Amino acid sequence: MAILTLTTDFGSRDWFVGTMKGVILQRAPRVTLVDLTHEIAPGDIRGAAFALRSSCRYFPRGTVHLVVVDPGVGSARAALAARTDGHMLVGPDNGVLSWVVAQGGSTIVRRIENTALFLQPLSNTFHGRDVFVPVAAYLAAGGRLGQVGPLTTDFVRLPWPEVKQARKGVVGEVIYVDRFGNAITNVTRDACERVTEGCGGQSGRVVLPSGSTCVLGACYASVQAGRPVGVIGSSGLLEIAIRGGNSVRRLGLRIGHPIRLEPRPS
Amino acid sequence: MAILTLTTDFGSRDWFVGTMKGVILQRAPRVTLVDLTHEIAPGDIRGAAFALRSSCRYFPRGTVHLVVVDPGVGSARAALAARTDGHMLVGPDNGVLSWVVAQGGSTIVRRIENTALFLQPLSNTFHGRDVFVPVAAYLAAGGRLGQVGPLTTDFVRLPWPEVKQARKGVVGEVIYVDRFGNAITNVTRDACERVTEGCGGQSGRVVLPSGSTCVLGACYASVQAGRPVGVIGSSGLLEIAIRGGNSVRRLGLRIGHPIRLEPRPS
Amino acid sequence: MAILTLTTDFGSRDWFVGTMKGVILQRAPRVTLVDLTHEIAPGDIRGAAFALRSSCRYFPRGTVHLVVVDPGVGSARAALAARTDGHMLVGPDNGVLSWVVAQGGSTIVRRIENTALFLQPLSNTFHGRDVFVPVAAYLAAGGRLGQVGPLTTDFVRLPWPEVKQARKGVVGEVIYVDRFGNAITNVTRDACERVTEGCGGQSGRVVLPSGSTCVLGACYASVQAGRPVGVIGSSGLLEIAIRGGNSVRRLGLRIGHPIRLEPRPS
Repeated sequence: MAILTLTTDFGSRDWFVGTMKGVILQRAPRVTLVDLTHEIAPGDIRGAAFALRSSCRYFPRGTVHLVVVDPGVGSARAALAARTDGHMLVGPDNGVLSWVVAQGGSTIVRRIENTALFLQPLSNTFHGRDVFVPVAAYLAAGGRLGQVGPLTTDFVRLPWPEVKQARKGVVGEVIYVDRFGNAITNVTRDACERVTEGCGGQSGRVVLPSGSTCVLGACYASVQAGRPVGVIGSSGLLEIAIRGGNSVRRLGLRIGHPIRLEPRPS
Repeated sequence: MAILTLTTDFGSRDWFVGTMKGVILQRAPRVTLVDLTHEIAPGDIRGAAFALRSSCRYFPRGTVHLVVVDPGVGSARAALAARTDGHMLVGPDNGVLSWVVAQGGSTIVRRIENTALFLQPLSNTFHGRDVFVPVAAYLAAGGRLGQVGPLTTDFVRLPWPEVKQARKGVVGEVIYVDRFGNAITNVTRDACERVTEGCGGQSGRVVLPSGSTCVLGACYASVQAGRPVGVIGSSGLLEIAIRGGNSVRRLGLRIGHPIRLEPRPS
Repeated sequence: MAILTLTTDFGSRDWFVGTMKGVILQRAPRVTLVDLTHEIAPGDIRGAAFALRSSCRYFPRGTVHLVVVDPGVGSARAALAARTDGHMLVGPDNGVLSWVVAQGGSTIVRRIENTALFLQPLSNTFHGRDVFVPVAAYLAAGGRLGQVGPLTTDFVRLPWPEVKQARKGVVGEVIYVDRFGNAITNVTRDACERVTEGCGGQSGRVVLPSGSTCVLGACYASVQAGRPVGVIGSSGLLEIAIRGGNSVRRLGLRIGHPIRLEPRPS
């Protein structure tokens, strides 16, 4: 019984996601459906790519991950199906799958061209239902990746924002803001450990865009209520939080803002 | 293993939908539950009727569709269960099922009166849990429609807004606004094709309430970013969109606003 | 095939809930997942405790209820697993389980200390995924409660706000506001019946904080549209509603506001 996850920008107000599930259950009646999220901001390809990258590895191998964030629907953009480290991926060729594909050791990417799998009549506005869902359901029901279309290495890759070495420590940036207002950065646990090494464990400090600083703590509760703190979050990345508050609202952080991590002066 | 879809105006903030699912799983443990949407605006019977009409046919035959948008809960309004083209429908007698029933070729409608199926004690405020869910679960578990109550032909029918012939082309109206801000109208693909026939394919134009016009395109990407376009959407109906934007916000469209489709002047 | 319900304050925007489901399905592939709600206000322990209390008994015995509203994540707060009246409960020791536990006739509470069950590496910010989910999945897959850790009677209990006897009738308070804007109080059906007894059925009246009053009706439709009404809601508690409107917005009701119920003067 395969698992099929869904990640879209369709929201939960309309019937779009429900309709996709109807088509999936027609073709793969025994699949277990899991909503990853449908609240990706409309057309936010990077947000969807990051959500998929952050969660994919927590599912069993063999899971099919379907992503429909597709501002170019109906245009000439291609459709992709891939296998990477035992996970199956289906989505538009706009970069939305590329952060998982880049992480994967062993990756096969195919262009979806087998129109016999598609729902007919094919709409021009809802390839989620008419193209991606049928292919994802086919794979979840045990279909072969080789049947969806030809191999390709020519697909859209989103650049991953790399951390830069600074005179003292490293400079990263905010790459995602979560529902609690925590600002997740691209600074990994490893990079944090390299910076704070030799200063004894938790003695890093975070420099915010405003120039103010906060400590690097073990958890949100490492500081008093209302105080900012840098923590290694659940994705293994440095995030800026305010205990019991919304750091993005309080500190004015936005995606792309620089965050510096440096050893705490002794 | 039957499928049971849920459409309500209960939102996702409270425990109402979860509680309904608990009762369903007590009575039909092997059912597959699918949320169509719980974000129907409170009491919006037409919105729910349209959501159901738009998605129902994408589910396998034998699916039970439960709709609880029930502003008259606890009053004397009747409760209905129906079968239409192999789909089962359960909901209050306020018109919410009537757009699917009207589409169906072969339809049986029964009034829910078999109180032995109800949850006890019966509340006066949550017939979703106490009346509709037990009946829907009974049907999903293989129960017979004939057991829920007597046949009826006397139930509330919502009038479907009909398109009017104009001197040039047709005049329809906005009937639904989706999460992307696309304004869905009652003008069908057939009506569009009749208007544009003889003008060669896509050469229709849409006249908005403001008097401004936009092209009838094949997909959202048929126009430049930020430009309005009329497309045949995924429900087979003309919708007004702005590429990469929110047409309802930008064009001031509302449910009920007239939309004219006419051949493009050559 | 066990049922596992999820109640969190994680919202539906991010991938947190989806990730938890991935971990659950790794460990208990045949479980049926039900979202109770993920829209508890961030850190609102009382809201979550009330949601669980209101819905728990509608699920079959043997259901595992997982609650992750955990503002103290990463601090020294304990983690609990309990069985009460055949229902299994898993969550942080911050009171969130205590209103169900208090209702239960036969209750066993254990402190989660068996780290062999946890996900590794253990994060400091997401015990939902790394601690509570693995334990809940273990129980849903048939694991024994005795294996999760030692018995305890020393856990956080939220005080339940008790109704007070007044000169005439009783005084309760608003304890929850639902999505429709109905203000749910702690006044039980029994308390209402005692007040109105001897006055013949429905002849109680509700005194609002402003001093204005409304009738105690059988259902929302007992009054004209736009008028306030007290009804015994689906949880068996008195709630203040406005027919077709939002009572909280219209009447300025807030959690903690006093609500008096008294016999209607004859």
